[in-house]
Amino acid sequence: MQKEEIQSIIDLKTKPLGALGLLEKIALKIGLVQRRNHLELIQPHLIVFAGDHGIAQSGVSAYPAEVTPQMVFNFLNNGAAINIFCNQNEIDLTIVDAGVNYDFDDYSILKNCKVEKSTKNFLHETAMTTTQLNQCFDYSKKIVDEIAQNGTNIIGFGEMGIGNTSSASMIVHYLTDLPLAQCIGRGTGLNDEQLQNKVDILTQTRNRHGELTDPKQILTTFGGFEVAQMTGAMLTAYEHNMLIMIDGYIASAAILVASKLEPEILKNAIFCHQSDESGHQYLLNYFNEEPILKINLRLGEGTGCALAYPIIKSAVNFFNDMASFKSAGVSNKETGVEC
Amino acid sequence: MQKEEIQSIIDLKTKPLGALGLLEKIALKIGLVQRRNHLELIQPHLIVFAGDHGIAQSGVSAYPAEVTPQMVFNFLNNGAAINIFCNQNEIDLTIVDAGVNYDFDDYSILKNCKVEKSTKNFLHETAMTTTQLNQCFDYSKKIVDEIAQNGTNIIGFGEMGIGNTSSASMIVHYLTDLPLAQCIGRGTGLNDEQLQNKVDILTQTRNRHGELTDPKQILTTFGGFEVAQMTGAMLTAYEHNMLIMIDGYIASAAILVASKLEPEILKNAIFCHQSDESGHQYLLNYFNEEPILKINLRLGEGTGCALAYPIIKSAVNFFNDMASFKSAGVSNKETGVEC
Repeated sequence: MQKEEIQSIIDLKTKPLGALGLLEKIALKIGLVQRRNHLELIQPHLIVFAGDHGIAQSGVSAYPAEVTPQMVFNFLNNGAAINIFCNQNEIDLTIVDAGVNYDFDDYSILKNCKVEKSTKNFLHETAMTTTQLNQCFDYSKKIVDEIAQNGTNIIGFGEMGIGNTSSASMIVHYLTDLPLAQCIGRGTGLNDEQLQNKVDILTQTRNRHGELTDPKQILTTFGGFEVAQMTGAMLTAYEHNMLIMIDGYIASAAILVASKLEPEILKNAIFCHQSDESGHQYLLNYFNEEPILKINLRLGEGTGCALAYPIIKSAVNFFNDMASFKSAGVSNKETGVEC
Repeated sequence: MQKEEIQSIIDLKTKPLGALGLLEKIALKIGLVQRRNHLELIQPHLIVFAGDHGIAQSGVSAYPAEVTPQMVFNFLNNGAAINIFCNQNEIDLTIVDAGVNYDFDDYSILKNCKVEKSTKNFLHETAMTTTQLNQCFDYSKKIVDEIAQNGTNIIGFGEMGIGNTSSASMIVHYLTDLPLAQCIGRGTGLNDEQLQNKVDILTQTRNRHGELTDPKQILTTFGGFEVAQMTGAMLTAYEHNMLIMIDGYIASAAILVASKLEPEILKNAIFCHQSDESGHQYLLNYFNEEPILKINLRLGEGTGCALAYPIIKSAVNFFNDMASFKSAGVSNKETGVEC
């Protein structure tokens, strides 16, 4: 099915041309991925990757590193925002321990993909080894391949990792032309002084590592294990031609890396919200993408994906089920009265 | 329950302070309406009021007046966008013939509240009589009272009426200090020339009617029957302490009138989207309200309410079901580690 045919289905629905705004763009995007006149969202799934960061020891976050495992417990006990929103919108949820500084018991929704209990502090050294990066990609490929077997054709990704906005800031700075300071935001809620400290630490980091251009090397140098596994999971989701729901700043940094390895992946990406984190707006412009929600979220966990999912579903539903001017006998100013 | 208690429930959820952005403001608003620590959305309902406008004869719309009854048929046959989105989100739907130029057969979801087959053309005369306005308020009170008997505590309103952005433009101009030209937009899709004609017609209208300040007189002079019934329905919904979902420009004009008669009504209003119609952004600023969706909708029918409803539900769900720092044993930077 060609783009023109998909657009024509949208244009002949009983509404003024373009009156459903962004919903029409989403329907077109899904149409271009699925290439059929009946679109489908099957078994939506969200994976939250969690990992600890060596850089957290340099005081870049408003919260202590212990919050990473505490929040993983919260996910496992169904108490976090992402649990609530996935339950509401019937999205399957998987939690992945990509490298948290705690040994968890078994839980049905938890996958143990721990590479190590934390990355190294990238202020002083490379966050992970190349072997560890490959391990991250292997782990996440296995998880997404398994999910694909259930028929899932739409997947979203969230993260938990104290310190990971610093990781994302470095990645965005290296892979775009945005000056470092503009890549750095308040994360979970730094005050002015703490923000200045974060800028100082990351500027030292920049000086320490110098020029880097290879996406995988950049991911190895700054990536958390959760960021690396998310990147790998996105690439695997693309191999399965899934729709990929993108959450906030960290997920956008992950697809930035993924898009440098596989540029076509952006065709499958649906940007779910515009984070309150500075740098994210820039990144959305960089991708030339309009986010679904602009409601000042800055929580991560994939919450933007879970909240935007009903809107994505609405785009599919209007495309599939709304009457056309012809079928409804409604006058169409573009094509004349047809009834 | 006091505002501080409600805010405290929100602040002690396992997330950085304010990290759920607008969802937190919505939860607070609902908390202030319901004054309890477990919020509820019961039997959501959407009413679409339809009516024809005399002003449509002056060529202010891109579509002919016949589209009003045609679209009502589309609603009755479950083919319009609002049907699709209400079905998806389990919102009950009622269609009201407030004054359409057609005699419909009986349908279970249709209420016959026809005042007359069209308003008069307000370019030349007052759109409706005072008796007709009162009739509109009586009709809509009866409908909303009936819906309240089902336990409904959240209601949204949509409209269909070729020419009704002109009606809304006049109302907004008279009841705020916004210059007339800035109240006028492209409606269902006017080109530059047609837009200029609309501005000319409404400028003549302004000169014809001169100064008016009484909200009911302004509604009588310019209101469609559907706008007047929507205004009355909002006032009745407020009497029942329902949450009132506000759609786009026309619904916002209706609550503008309602708020001049009952200023407290705005406490119950949830602004669901920011329309692409010029003037609506101004009106949202006038109310000092942040809309849930900014996705360039310009369809009316209540579609913004139906699409935003899952987000409102998410606000209620996180308030009710998310763990607190204490219950989850998560360190809280504001209050110290509690676990």
